[in-house]
Amino acid sequence: MSTINFNDFEEQIGYKFKNKMYLERALTHSSYNKEKNTKHQDNERLEFLGDSFLDAIISEELFQEIPQGSEGKLTKTRALVVCEKSLARVANKYGLGRYMYMGHGEETTGGRCKSSIIADAVEAVIGALYLDGGYEITKKFVLKSFEDILQEAETGKLFSDFKSEVQEIMQKRDKNAIISYETDREEGPAHDKTFFVHISCNGNILGRGEGKSKKEAEQNAAKAAIAALERRETSDVF
Amino acid sequence: MSTINFNDFEEQIGYKFKNKMYLERALTHSSYNKEKNTKHQDNERLEFLGDSFLDAIISEELFQEIPQGSEGKLTKTRALVVCEKSLARVANKYGLGRYMYMGHGEETTGGRCKSSIIADAVEAVIGALYLDGGYEITKKFVLKSFEDILQEAETGKLFSDFKSEVQEIMQKRDKNAIISYETDREEGPAHDKTFFVHISCNGNILGRGEGKSKKEAEQNAAKAAIAALERRETSDVF
Repeated sequence: MSTINFNDFEEQIGYKFKNKMYLERALTHSSYNKEKNTKHQDNERLEFLGDSFLDAIISEELFQEIPQGSEGKLTKTRALVVCEKSLARVANKYGLGRYMYMGHGEETTGGRCKSSIIADAVEAVIGALYLDGGYEITKKFVLKSFEDILQEAETGKLFSDFKSEVQEIMQKRDKNAIISYETDREEGPAHDKTFFVHISCNGNILGRGEGKSKKEAEQNAAKAAIAALERRETSDVF
Repeated sequence: MSTINFNDFEEQIGYKFKNKMYLERALTHSSYNKEKNTKHQDNERLEFLGDSFLDAIISEELFQEIPQGSEGKLTKTRALVVCEKSLARVANKYGLGRYMYMGHGEETTGGRCKSSIIADAVEAVIGALYLDGGYEITKKFVLKSFEDILQEAETGKLFSDFKSEVQEIMQKRDKNAIISYETDREEGPAHDKTFFVHISCNGNILGRGEGKSKKEAEQNAAKAAIAALERRETSDVF
């Protein structure tokens, strides 16, 4: 366990661990122990701990920053902020993948760049910080790390990610791809309408979504399209 | 808002709020505002906040108390500890239902005793405590309030609730429901018997279970019955 420079990582995150064992464990993927057959624990328990503190700290921040938001609105916004994608963004900010212990097999298949692995490790680092430094230090780290993500979520910009994402995906496949959204129907009275839309690419329907505004329905359709595209990632339909 | 004695409740929970507004809000069910048409906020936002801190505090406790537990084991145990039933137990410990503001309609239909309402209010009180007193005070309150529940969960006793649970479910559907357990057979030598039982409600078999004691077999039968009932929740077979 001597090849990885923890000092570097500590500088990146701006915190020196009193007990380095916590940090070491947070940065150990389960594949490392399985391969080395060591007793050294991996980061899964710390991930459990960190995940719940991340949730609580983000909840408080949203509670304070969106004073008029209903419980439902807060829950939805939190789900946007605390997701694999955001966590991977935080991981990349600190170059976390480089500092991880992982099995050779995992490493050669790109483990250091896998969103799921580095996202989990961010949660584990949060758990380690809590054990080593306590609640206030953990809170400071989370708020600093998620600052831009929180801002995007609060201003509704994080939402607009599904539409840009589907655009990106499709244009990578075909530079001339043209994405369009069409409203199929509206239901309910004027003050409480639900919109039903679909998204197409060059005439092929990619997904459908509904929402209380056209914008929301389009976001949901884009989200459904991404999920469908991921399912048939290996196919060449589009 | 003057008929409810908050001092009493504060004595019950052992904490004096600096800002009474937090407590007042935590104890206000949404039915109160809807009926009175006031702008006074209800406890739903605080419930969102308290729920996440409850989760984090219980997670840490389980992390420390079950040092050999896998992430999966910790997650399962936490789900047992943080559930409506446990929360309602905590609420009843403090007589919380008595101190709530709720609409007349809700009150006359037994709102002060409804598990869902008082469980949500416990979470809201936790959120209010956090805003008023900070993290450490919240943690102290949660650990004190859940002490017995945590102990039962860690020693596997919280599991033994399946029999009461099936009783509750059936009596909600039919007040005259009669639950009974019958031993079908016993296998093995006297010192190592296995018991096979079934659970019935008004003569209909709900589930079967086995175990090394009659009690254990009954618990397993009750557990099977709950699973089966959940699967056909929409049917009216019973």
